Amino acid sequence: MPASKIDSLGEWRRTHYSKDITPSNDGKEVTVFGWISSIRDQGGLVFIIINDNFGIMQMTLHKNKVSKELLSKVESLSEHASIGVRGKVKTMSKAPNGAEIVPSEIKVLALPQKVPPFGLHAETLPSMDKRFEIRAVDLRRPKALAIFAIRGKSLEIIREFLKERGYHEVNTPKIIATATEGGAALFPLLYYDKEAFLTQSPQLFKEQLVMAFEKVFEIAPAYRAEQSRTLQHLSEFLSIDVEEAFVDYKDVMNTIEALISRLYTGVSKECSKELKLLGISKLPAIDKIPRLTYDSIIELLKGKDVQIEWGDDLSSESLDMIADELPSYYFITDWPTKSKPFYIKPASNPELSESFDLMYGSLEIASGGTRIGSKKELMKRLKEKGLKPKGFEYHLAVFDYGMPPHAGFGLGFERLLMVLTGQKNIREVSVFPRDQFRLTP
Amino acid sequence: MPASKIDSLGEWRRTHYSKDITPSNDGKEVTVFGWISSIRDQGGLVFIIINDNFGIMQMTLHKNKVSKELLSKVESLSEHASIGVRGKVKTMSKAPNGAEIVPSEIKVLALPQKVPPFGLHAETLPSMDKRFEIRAVDLRRPKALAIFAIRGKSLEIIREFLKERGYHEVNTPKIIATATEGGAALFPLLYYDKEAFLTQSPQLFKEQLVMAFEKVFEIAPAYRAEQSRTLQHLSEFLSIDVEEAFVDYKDVMNTIEALISRLYTGVSKECSKELKLLGISKLPAIDKIPRLTYDSIIELLKGKDVQIEWGDDLSSESLDMIADELPSYYFITDWPTKSKPFYIKPASNPELSESFDLMYGSLEIASGGTRIGSKKELMKRLKEKGLKPKGFEYHLAVFDYGMPPHAGFGLGFERLLMVLTGQKNIREVSVFPRDQFRLTP
Repeated sequence: MPASKIDSLGEWRRTHYSKDITPSNDGKEVTVFGWISSIRDQGGLVFIIINDNFGIMQMTLHKNKVSKELLSKVESLSEHASIGVRGKVKTMSKAPNGAEIVPSEIKVLALPQKVPPFGLHAETLPSMDKRFEIRAVDLRRPKALAIFAIRGKSLEIIREFLKERGYHEVNTPKIIATATEGGAALFPLLYYDKEAFLTQSPQLFKEQLVMAFEKVFEIAPAYRAEQSRTLQHLSEFLSIDVEEAFVDYKDVMNTIEALISRLYTGVSKECSKELKLLGISKLPAIDKIPRLTYDSIIELLKGKDVQIEWGDDLSSESLDMIADELPSYYFITDWPTKSKPFYIKPASNPELSESFDLMYGSLEIASGGTRIGSKKELMKRLKEKGLKPKGFEYHLAVFDYGMPPHAGFGLGFERLLMVLTGQKNIREVSVFPRDQFRLTP
Repeated sequence: MPASKIDSLGEWRRTHYSKDITPSNDGKEVTVFGWISSIRDQGGLVFIIINDNFGIMQMTLHKNKVSKELLSKVESLSEHASIGVRGKVKTMSKAPNGAEIVPSEIKVLALPQKVPPFGLHAETLPSMDKRFEIRAVDLRRPKALAIFAIRGKSLEIIREFLKERGYHEVNTPKIIATATEGGAALFPLLYYDKEAFLTQSPQLFKEQLVMAFEKVFEIAPAYRAEQSRTLQHLSEFLSIDVEEAFVDYKDVMNTIEALISRLYTGVSKECSKELKLLGISKLPAIDKIPRLTYDSIIELLKGKDVQIEWGDDLSSESLDMIADELPSYYFITDWPTKSKPFYIKPASNPELSESFDLMYGSLEIASGGTRIGSKKELMKRLKEKGLKPKGFEYHLAVFDYGMPPHAGFGLGFERLLMVLTGQKNIREVSVFPRDQFRLTP
């Protein structure tokens, strides 16, 4: 690439976005900015595709009609360069949005010094590790941009749904003194001179907060020091947490059902272009999500070639077998009490609990249940789980002041997005994923 | 308090909220839920105020008109109890929303076992430490509920503003391998077998992401291991981060100005009841925020009884003196390059930088600037700051592929809320604050 002077932004400011380069603006003088995703030199003509915040636009240059200065600038350009363009809009049926820009002046604002090890439009890509070394550049691929457009829209739809239903957004600490569920999968940290941990879930906080706010939600990072490197685990993920007073686990499943239904309708409507780019011609309509008890799942598995007893957790082998018959969304409900965390409420038959997992085939998407409202019962369950009530004293304390009955769920946002965007590797739906071996960029 | 049976929620579900107990529903049978914030026994009548997700409602009980069973249930009730009520709506001009509920059936869903060490409506409160031991109960005070109603609405307004202007919401990791700004105020953690840190800011991530998304924002926790315990520092806070390509620091100040203006208008309009409860009769209209250069601030201080040289940071003593003359919002712009982080762009006079702080009196609310776009210049600044480029290799790598000119800001959400809600202690605007001495609840 030729050495070339970088212009400063100076007083240039954008007057129009790519979405405004349309026949209705024919003849208008515009200033646009963006980075180049394609450049084609066809004899006397140079076609440049510029990407901005709202999509793409075409700039066409007639080599023999422009100044030497402009031509030399254009010759310095390559894919990934950032430029500013002043020029006139001209109707052109074959261009994106039906119009193009005929430039009169160009500012070269950034030039790549290296060629990325993958093409923006390539079908075959290098390994993920290679791409992720320069993830910000990797994210310029149209398929990556499509995934994150859907991610942004999904977050918006989910928040809108929860606000409409009267849930209050809360922000709880991610640094805690005690392991929430007593699990081992915690990241320890040094908090001044004390040991502390990163939260696996805002579980105890959100339960407490229903005392004051009745219906709460939080969308925030959660942490699991997973020891396995799979396609569906991240060490840091976005957790969508909802908790509500005066309802039970069946109401919560209704809420999730309505949420997923709304999400699918909304993304179908507002991201059809992005879905198509990802090879998804049409998202299914999600209406009712089947509810199968844990008991019925065990019955289903007993006819199959897998060793399982009532009370066992479902192995990935078992889950794969279930997924053969239930490839889409379904709930597994009424789990054995002993396989669920201490705060989940046992049912009238105390061997069973008022709990559920939301599954998609063999993938767990969300988990929830009715919570225990009585301090006495909570302490009993803590002890049964081998946890020390002392470690939960601040949590237990508020139960002395009247904890209403409540229920809720936690949902792994990236897993939901994997399903929605058809990605096999959860890392593709995270801008900078974290796993056991990846702490950079 | 008498021992009393706790009812189960069973099949009862809410049909109406407090906001629906109005004269237009006179005569209607309703099922409502909530917790009791006031109970008054006036001879033959018992007045109970019930709080739910949308405010308060009144239930009135004529002792000699109800069953023994109902009466005995009512006698077991006290402040903070959670109940379900079935009854008829009756117009009553003195009741909240102009109507009350005459109960036919009550479920006692939770009874407090202890009396909180503060009254819900008390003017004098015990120490914050005492209150925060049972923070979820403390949050039931009307003033606390008002603060968090404003917090929720503020978040909503800010997100709406940014989305309207085309910023993409992103979620970047809070676990990083390298100290962003090389500061000491980091919490170290054990990430599997490696040392890692909690982010002080998503600075480097958001800069990289403008390559792909052009305009980004993130609202997420950030961490500072502050060694001082002041009224305006939290160890974990919500940071509002914005970054944008093809603009400079002046554009960013315009964006902040418009954001603050919108926030004040929106909160004034939608939270007038809550503001009043907090003693704020009217929020000022924020239109233009004055911009004073660092040089002019130094000039201003030179006439005062404080020792300061050009190039010095502004001590809290200096800031207090400035606040005497500038008690509301203002920007301090064009700081000495050496007092700003390595990624801030020096101005045409390289002693100065294209930077600003947003202040409210002596309180720093936000900070931002134009960023360096050239890798060479960035490496130079890193070295001048005594930082090793090696530690930033993943960040520097993407600059090889064409980093557009960009600028942005980070804003401490809780500080903004302190100002908005008139709180002197930042802990009051956080549900579960974290500081050097507070890691629980």
